[in-house]
Amino acid sequence: MSTKRELTVELGERSYPIYIGEGLIDEAGELFAKHGISKKSPLLIITDDEVAPRHLAHLNDVLSGAGFKVSTAIVPAGESSKSLAKLEELVTQALQAGLDRKSAIVALGGGVVGDLAGFVAASYMRGVKFVQVPTTILAHDSSVGGKVAVNHPLAKNIIGAFHQPELVLYDLLTLQTLPQRQISAGLSEVVKHGLIWDAEFVAWCDDHAEQLCALDHEALSYALYKGCSVKAAVVSEDERENGLRAILNLGHTIGHALEAVAGYNELLHGEAISIGMIGSARLAVALGAPEEIYNVTKRVLTKVGLPIRLPAHLDTDAIMEAMQHDKKFQEGTMVFIVPAAIGKVEINTQVSASLVREIVEQLKQEA
Amino acid sequence: MSTKRELTVELGERSYPIYIGEGLIDEAGELFAKHGISKKSPLLIITDDEVAPRHLAHLNDVLSGAGFKVSTAIVPAGESSKSLAKLEELVTQALQAGLDRKSAIVALGGGVVGDLAGFVAASYMRGVKFVQVPTTILAHDSSVGGKVAVNHPLAKNIIGAFHQPELVLYDLLTLQTLPQRQISAGLSEVVKHGLIWDAEFVAWCDDHAEQLCALDHEALSYALYKGCSVKAAVVSEDERENGLRAILNLGHTIGHALEAVAGYNELLHGEAISIGMIGSARLAVALGAPEEIYNVTKRVLTKVGLPIRLPAHLDTDAIMEAMQHDKKFQEGTMVFIVPAAIGKVEINTQVSASLVREIVEQLKQEA
Repeated sequence: MSTKRELTVELGERSYPIYIGEGLIDEAGELFAKHGISKKSPLLIITDDEVAPRHLAHLNDVLSGAGFKVSTAIVPAGESSKSLAKLEELVTQALQAGLDRKSAIVALGGGVVGDLAGFVAASYMRGVKFVQVPTTILAHDSSVGGKVAVNHPLAKNIIGAFHQPELVLYDLLTLQTLPQRQISAGLSEVVKHGLIWDAEFVAWCDDHAEQLCALDHEALSYALYKGCSVKAAVVSEDERENGLRAILNLGHTIGHALEAVAGYNELLHGEAISIGMIGSARLAVALGAPEEIYNVTKRVLTKVGLPIRLPAHLDTDAIMEAMQHDKKFQEGTMVFIVPAAIGKVEINTQVSASLVREIVEQLKQEA
Repeated sequence: MSTKRELTVELGERSYPIYIGEGLIDEAGELFAKHGISKKSPLLIITDDEVAPRHLAHLNDVLSGAGFKVSTAIVPAGESSKSLAKLEELVTQALQAGLDRKSAIVALGGGVVGDLAGFVAASYMRGVKFVQVPTTILAHDSSVGGKVAVNHPLAKNIIGAFHQPELVLYDLLTLQTLPQRQISAGLSEVVKHGLIWDAEFVAWCDDHAEQLCALDHEALSYALYKGCSVKAAVVSEDERENGLRAILNLGHTIGHALEAVAGYNELLHGEAISIGMIGSARLAVALGAPEEIYNVTKRVLTKVGLPIRLPAHLDTDAIMEAMQHDKKFQEGTMVFIVPAAIGKVEINTQVSASLVREIVEQLKQEA
C-alpha cells in the first residue's frame, strides 16, 4: 500500500484539499460529506464513454450508498466534447435531474471531462459546487487552479471561467488501466512542474522515469503530490492569471498551436506540450541560456516516453497563424515562457516571430 | 439640464461607479479611460438592431475619436438573442476583431444586450472587462449586481455568471425614444426597488408617476439613482446571492413563470414582474399582512401604466410547472419573497403550492 497524501490549495475562502491515494473512491461518501456536498440536492456525475464502463458504477454505488442523490451524464471521450453544444445538453440533463443551487457537479475523468464539467458547474445557475475525481495523470494539472473551459471552432479553451472545486479525490487505482501513451502524455505536465519550479524534482523524475512509466504507486503518488504542490503554490499567488501563473504555460504557446493545427487528435495534449517545452528550451539556448537546459529537458522527456520532434507534415505557416489566436498574446506583444535554468523560468514578452519560426523549423529536425 | 448623478456600487475590489446624466455618451472617452479601459487592446461594442441605428454610430465615434480601437457586433433585438448560439457567434467576432485579455466588452442596449454581452465578457478568455451603457429604464436593474446569463430552452437565465462591470454610463438622452410600453415596463423594477426597501421612495413614485411616464429628466434621473442605490445596497451585502439578495426577486417567481409560458414575447419582463408583484401582495394579504400592501402596490403599478391582470389564456398548470424549474426552488422547498409592509419584504420558504395556484387564479380576475 502506498502512502496516502493530502495537500491544500490555498486560496483564502476558496481553498480546497486534494486527496491522493489507493482506493479513495471507496471513501467518496465520507469525503464528499466532510466537504459540504449536499445529500438533499441531487448531484450530477459527468464522465465520458471510456471512463464510464470502468469507474462510473463504482462511484455511483459508493455515493448512493452514502445517501447522496446521484444522477449521471456520459459524453463521448475526446476534445470534441468540450463544446457549447455539449454544455447545453448537460444543462438539459441537470435541469431534468432537478439540480438546484445547492447541488454539485462531479467530474469523473481526465482533463476534457474536468474542463467541460467544471464549466457546467461554473455557469449552471451562475455557479454550483464542483468536485473533481481525476482518472488520468494529466488531470493532476487541471485539477489545481480552477481553470475550466470549452473550445470554440477558432480557438481552444476560449470560453470558460475560474471555478474552484470543493475537493479533488485522486484514486490511484483509476490510473491502472491507462494505456502507455496516455501515461507518458500525463507525465508531461508533471515534468513541466519540475522544470518551472523545482530542479530537485526534475532530478527525481530523471531517476524514477521507469517506475513512473510502470505506474508504481509510491512513485506515482509522490509525483502527483509534487506536481499538484508546485501548481498549487503558483496558483495561490496568482489565482486569476494576472502575472506569475503565466509560468505554467511553459511549452503551451507552441503546444496549443500544434494541437490546433493537428486537429486536437493526432497529438495528445501532453505530447504537444512536450514538443513545446523542447521548443522553449531551444529558445532559451538561442537567447543565451546554458545548453544544459536543452539537454536535461530532452533527456527527461525522452525517458518518460514523450515525443520531442514536431511532425514534419504540420505546416509552419499554419502553426505561426494559430499562435496569433493564443490567449497569451497581449496588446500585440508575443509572450513566451523561457527557462533560465532547470527549475526556473522567466516571462519573456519580447520574443520575435522570426525566431519562433526558426525554432519551429528546428523542432521538425529534432532527434 | 437635469442633475448629473453618480453612485458607487460597493463591492470591495470589484466596486464600480454608475454615472447618470444627459449627454453622457459624449463623455464616454474620458470616462472609459478614467476607469482603466485599454486603448491598446481592441474593444467590442455589442448592441441590438433596434438600438444600433439610434446610438451605435454616436458611441463608436466618441470612442474612436478618443483613441480606442472599436469593433462592433449587432444582434437581433429581443430575448431570443440570449442563447449559447449567439454567444458562440459573438466569440467568433471577438476573436476576429483580435480581442485579447486586456480588452473590454461594451453592452449598448437594454437588459437582453447587457445579460448577453456580460456573459460574453465573463467567459471570453475566462473573463475580460465589461462596460454597460444602458439604453432602457429597465436596464438600471441589470446594470447593478453583475448577474449575467443566457437562456436555455427549458429555463431562463440558467447559464451565466456573476461578472461586475468596470463602470456604467447611463445617458438619459438614450431613453427619449423609448415607446410608452417600454417606459412602463422599465418602471416596474424601479417601483420594485421601492417596495422592497424604501417606503418613502414608493410614495415619491406615487406622486411622480406622471412625470416618470413623460420621461421628465429630473424625475427620471432621481428615480434611476434611487433604484440603482437600493439595488447597490442589497448587492453590496450579498454579492453572490446567498441570502439577502433574494429579496430582489419580489414578483419574479411568478413573473419568470409567466414569461416562460407566454413565450418571452407576449409579456415584457417588467409587465410579467408587475403581475408577479401583485401576486406577492395578494400572497402577503392571504398570509395575514395588512390589505394596504395590496392597495398601494396596485395603485402605483397602475399609475405607471403597468398591467396587473394575468392573461386568462395562460394555462395555470403550465405556470405552476414552469415555477418548478425556477432557480428559487431550493432542496424541494418553495421560496417566495413576500411583503411585510410597503418598503419591507421577507423571505418565506414555506409557501404551499396550493396557495400559489389559488393566487394565480385570482390574478386572472384582477381588475
